[in-house]
Amino acid sequence: MISMQKPNLEVCLSPALLHLYNTKDAVVVIIDIFRATSTITAALHNGARCVIPVATVEECISIGKSLPGSLTAGERDGKVADGLQHGNSPLEYPASFIKDRALVLTTTNGTRLLHMVQGAAEIVIGSFLNLSVLCDYLIAQNKNVLLGCASWKDKYNLEDTLFAGAVINRIQHSFEINCDAARGARHLYNSSGGSNFIEFLKDGSHYRRLSAFGLQHDMEYCATPDLHPVVPYLNGTEIVIDTF
Amino acid sequence: MISMQKPNLEVCLSPALLHLYNTKDAVVVIIDIFRATSTITAALHNGARCVIPVATVEECISIGKSLPGSLTAGERDGKVADGLQHGNSPLEYPASFIKDRALVLTTTNGTRLLHMVQGAAEIVIGSFLNLSVLCDYLIAQNKNVLLGCASWKDKYNLEDTLFAGAVINRIQHSFEINCDAARGARHLYNSSGGSNFIEFLKDGSHYRRLSAFGLQHDMEYCATPDLHPVVPYLNGTEIVIDTF
Repeated sequence: MISMQKPNLEVCLSPALLHLYNTKDAVVVIIDIFRATSTITAALHNGARCVIPVATVEECISIGKSLPGSLTAGERDGKVADGLQHGNSPLEYPASFIKDRALVLTTTNGTRLLHMVQGAAEIVIGSFLNLSVLCDYLIAQNKNVLLGCASWKDKYNLEDTLFAGAVINRIQHSFEINCDAARGARHLYNSSGGSNFIEFLKDGSHYRRLSAFGLQHDMEYCATPDLHPVVPYLNGTEIVIDTF
Repeated sequence: MISMQKPNLEVCLSPALLHLYNTKDAVVVIIDIFRATSTITAALHNGARCVIPVATVEECISIGKSLPGSLTAGERDGKVADGLQHGNSPLEYPASFIKDRALVLTTTNGTRLLHMVQGAAEIVIGSFLNLSVLCDYLIAQNKNVLLGCASWKDKYNLEDTLFAGAVINRIQHSFEINCDAARGARHLYNSSGGSNFIEFLKDGSHYRRLSAFGLQHDMEYCATPDLHPVVPYLNGTEIVIDTF
């Protein structure tokens, strides 16, 4: 007999609140729209062999040296970190450059959250770039879901919450939702009108911060749905996609 | 010469995020709509001599015994706590009952946040019951403001965030706001339509939780603007209002 009980969906707005949620046996979606999870999604769809998320710049350099053909990349406070080769932009990793290479990546918020999640059934990567395929995937799993916003240094941010709302808008009928953060995210999504996300996000702190570095085009790319329809997931220490 | 720099306004969505904000020299508004700050506002407007917020039930009982004519009140998880005389409802404290008495109060979320705030220029109490007069007060102070949501056991909640949005909607032109949590709260307020708050909040976790105890009328009262136009503030260990 098939149970009619729907799985639960919750939203965690900041890594500093992660301990309040049950990540055990849930599919945890890591969300860092500007820009870690957008970059991971793009790099893997463009043929990267894997992305290795690491917590520190030192670790990034060390792993990069030990892995032939790998690239080290990452940012701190929105800029390429000292000692690393590349930044945290999805546009830096076209197929011509990234195919079959391992990307060792460290970022301010997204890779940090990834390392904080413990005991999850699965850890997957969410971004506007893979929105629809991710939603289909979450429905098909039929497991509890936690949408985890990487936020900005533990503070609520507009773009990650908007994305959580976009996911909820698409999959809410397949889940039991009794979580005010999810309700807030859904309201935020509705406020955005459900399209032209970048226009809505121009008011946000992170957009303003990255604009000062001339990254408007980059952010516009990150806010475009479904350019890279893959579902990256953590497999041991590597983020990969299934290829057929 | 008068400086044209506006003071800053930020929103803290949970006590667990309080350490991320600069409370020093700011006016911190404690927000616990269901129901601590609503009850405090009502009791003081109805003539209570003071409200003494305490962290634990034991402390509440002990202070109650030492203060002649005081009342002990408080809840845990939405119900009157064992050993206390009264609950956490604004409707329990009409003038005929509370006038000139001290109310010793402990609650799950609101009084806890109050004790966590350190070094603020001032700590004031916010609720729909004193919305307009609070907004006028905050503008007149011309100081940095932190709107502090008591939340529910550190999780984002709809009613406190909605109230933060209502305040922002009224005072935003007098403040510099570069805080995504404030933007999110403003969007939430706009989603509510700016009136009939209780209808909007019926979807929230806390409304559902308290409804199970038959507290619908109580929450409707808490969501009604401007029934108790006073600005309670913390003076030493007591919350009081200025009376003229």
